[in-house]
Amino acid sequence: MSNQPFRAVDLIRKKRDGGELSRAEIEFFVDGCTKGTIPDYQVSAWLMAALLRRLTREETAALTNAMLHSGEVLDLSALRGKKVDKHSTGGVGDKTSLILAPLVAAGGGIVPMISGRGLGHTGGTLDKLESIPGFNVKLPLPEFRRILDVCGCSMIGQTDEIAPADRKLYALRDVTGTVESPYLICASIMSKKLAEGADALVLDVKTGSGAFMKKEEDAVFLAELMVETGELMGKRMAALITDMDQPLGRMVGNTLEVDESIQILRGQGPVDLRDLCLELAGWMFFLGEVCSSVEKGKELAAKLINSGHALEKFRQMIQLHGGDSSVVDHPDKMPRAKHQLQVLSPRSGYVNSIQCEDVGTACVILGGGREKKEDSIDHSVGIVLHCKVGDRVSAGAVLCTIYCHSDSHAKPAEKLLQAGYRIEDAPPAERRPLIHRVIGERNH
Amino acid sequence: MSNQPFRAVDLIRKKRDGGELSRAEIEFFVDGCTKGTIPDYQVSAWLMAALLRRLTREETAALTNAMLHSGEVLDLSALRGKKVDKHSTGGVGDKTSLILAPLVAAGGGIVPMISGRGLGHTGGTLDKLESIPGFNVKLPLPEFRRILDVCGCSMIGQTDEIAPADRKLYALRDVTGTVESPYLICASIMSKKLAEGADALVLDVKTGSGAFMKKEEDAVFLAELMVETGELMGKRMAALITDMDQPLGRMVGNTLEVDESIQILRGQGPVDLRDLCLELAGWMFFLGEVCSSVEKGKELAAKLINSGHALEKFRQMIQLHGGDSSVVDHPDKMPRAKHQLQVLSPRSGYVNSIQCEDVGTACVILGGGREKKEDSIDHSVGIVLHCKVGDRVSAGAVLCTIYCHSDSHAKPAEKLLQAGYRIEDAPPAERRPLIHRVIGERNH
Repeated sequence: MSNQPFRAVDLIRKKRDGGELSRAEIEFFVDGCTKGTIPDYQVSAWLMAALLRRLTREETAALTNAMLHSGEVLDLSALRGKKVDKHSTGGVGDKTSLILAPLVAAGGGIVPMISGRGLGHTGGTLDKLESIPGFNVKLPLPEFRRILDVCGCSMIGQTDEIAPADRKLYALRDVTGTVESPYLICASIMSKKLAEGADALVLDVKTGSGAFMKKEEDAVFLAELMVETGELMGKRMAALITDMDQPLGRMVGNTLEVDESIQILRGQGPVDLRDLCLELAGWMFFLGEVCSSVEKGKELAAKLINSGHALEKFRQMIQLHGGDSSVVDHPDKMPRAKHQLQVLSPRSGYVNSIQCEDVGTACVILGGGREKKEDSIDHSVGIVLHCKVGDRVSAGAVLCTIYCHSDSHAKPAEKLLQAGYRIEDAPPAERRPLIHRVIGERNH
Repeated sequence: MSNQPFRAVDLIRKKRDGGELSRAEIEFFVDGCTKGTIPDYQVSAWLMAALLRRLTREETAALTNAMLHSGEVLDLSALRGKKVDKHSTGGVGDKTSLILAPLVAAGGGIVPMISGRGLGHTGGTLDKLESIPGFNVKLPLPEFRRILDVCGCSMIGQTDEIAPADRKLYALRDVTGTVESPYLICASIMSKKLAEGADALVLDVKTGSGAFMKKEEDAVFLAELMVETGELMGKRMAALITDMDQPLGRMVGNTLEVDESIQILRGQGPVDLRDLCLELAGWMFFLGEVCSSVEKGKELAAKLINSGHALEKFRQMIQLHGGDSSVVDHPDKMPRAKHQLQVLSPRSGYVNSIQCEDVGTACVILGGGREKKEDSIDHSVGIVLHCKVGDRVSAGAVLCTIYCHSDSHAKPAEKLLQAGYRIEDAPPAERRPLIHRVIGERNH
């Protein structure tokens, strides 16, 4: 006879039969999973049952809470001001984190950002930051807290202390076909974000061909679930459903994306990326109680860019992380592949769509991303998109430029990019706005 | 890059999304599971997806076939005559295997029986056989084949060579809440039974309060699935849906059940057990092509009992397995607990039902069964039911006798048995027949 209050097999059976687990049962499960007292084969059976039978709102909140408390929860209350973070569900060319952290910190918000690495066709914030020579994303939590105190923003990778249950569960979900559950995604994201000590969180939930959630209804469902879960836990929450039917901005690849981020912080760069950053920053200023409305937050963000304060904050953060902050003035100090290959349009017409997955995968093929977690990254390679959806092109015009080491190295990527551009005689019928809708804070 | 034709995670995803796996995919999965190249956590996630998303008939047949061929498949074609076996889904007091093997062999059928041990409230054929001093159920396959050749029947436990995939999968299902899938149950049973080299198989699918399948519709579904799967694999198949609303016969416990089996083989013993054995034997003779109809098979079975040939065959089999065959004449040579405790009726009335699980669990509590696989067994204890459903009893009448080591040892079992007998003023309204229906061989 065991002293355990529950048996793992009973919790699996309960979920399998569509029952609702109590808070105590979920805590037992997460604790056993973290400590390894519940073996992986039981955890994965439960995860599959949870994916197929779904979780209730209460179970999702209990799971998030148990995962959050599986490790250290940062207490940033000693730092003046509200702590506000942004999380994106991931896309191609999405470098908004690099821009938002210094931008919001420049306005007085505190942005404690714990980010991830790239996998598959989407890039990762940590990989991009590491294009900056010397930039250290593996700082211990006390150093993270010190930088936040000095500079208002810091960006590091997940440490062993933060939500260890999520690391364990995510590794298992990845290989057992149990990633694609909104409930498990919600608990994974929210447990990590709440563990970093944020008071408010703005979610950028991507939808479209290049997003994890292809269908808008799935994106909305996940957004609502995360907003509800965060609010249940006393956080101010908003989620923007944003377009990922083509890459964001014009640059894809690690060095190139830092370069484009610097452009935005200089008041330059592509309009779609700038618009999304201003919108997200507006929400962060509003939920972080720096501004009394999102509109005022957007105005503040624009001012901070125009005045150069946002860029200076980026420079300061790079310095504090041990990086070479002169890249802000000389982006060519970051590793950049010497060779360029132009991808030409096979025909005249209008760009009707650009398959994000093809662009992302082209970057992986070049060496700029990972197929497997263990793969190393070539920061120097990437793609610059000269044409985007709606643009008119002639046959032979340059659609994009590949930064690579040789023509032969880039050939498979070139093929993929050419296939990824759909060019038709007529312009695309319908253009979806960049921001589809907002969920949370009384639906604005 | 791997040389494997598939990735386990893709097979999990496919089943998770309700897709149908190909024969090659299922073979890859079973092979990886048997060899350990697919880790347990992936196997259990797939099992849960299979349980909740179900398998098609083709997937079930492919799974059965792959599990069957995961180890040695006995080739008994050198032995003259058809090989025919019986499998029961398990119940309380079900000792038909002990009777049927010698009975059918006495008539010229060949019965290669590979059986299991008891777990939970149901007993196991191997445990019962081991009540006979010296009886060895752990014979190697060549010896099993030799005994079959000499005697026409042999009963052993599953060996490492037979369907190793099933042993692996069953151990995992047991702890991951994935036992209760008719598709997985079918593949588990059929792979083992077909590996023993049987040409025909009679299934005894129990339904009722004491059965694994409480609802008749579930029993019918499983029976149809197994019959179809067997027929797809070229076997002659029939399934009897039989009653398990009360224990079968009057004796429960290892030595006691061998004793009652000998009674039946002597032409004595309780009528329900005798009737079921004649019916099952009739089907075995028919499908095993010894008789031209089930009716003729039943007549032959009755004759073999009356002539003493069936009992002599049992004696011969015991000898060939190294057992003391004098137990056939002197059942008291088997270990029997000295102490008896009478369980009395608390009131007058009619026995309306006897909860099989209570009777089975009482036997486990006495030490005659296992809660966990590692538990050892006390062959000497058990329960003799003097009253069965429909019987009229007075207050204070003996309902059953517990064979135990002391009163205190038996007290918890006594309580359970008293609770298990439901005694009402009126006789039970409806009596279900012992055999509800037959499935297979063109539904008779």
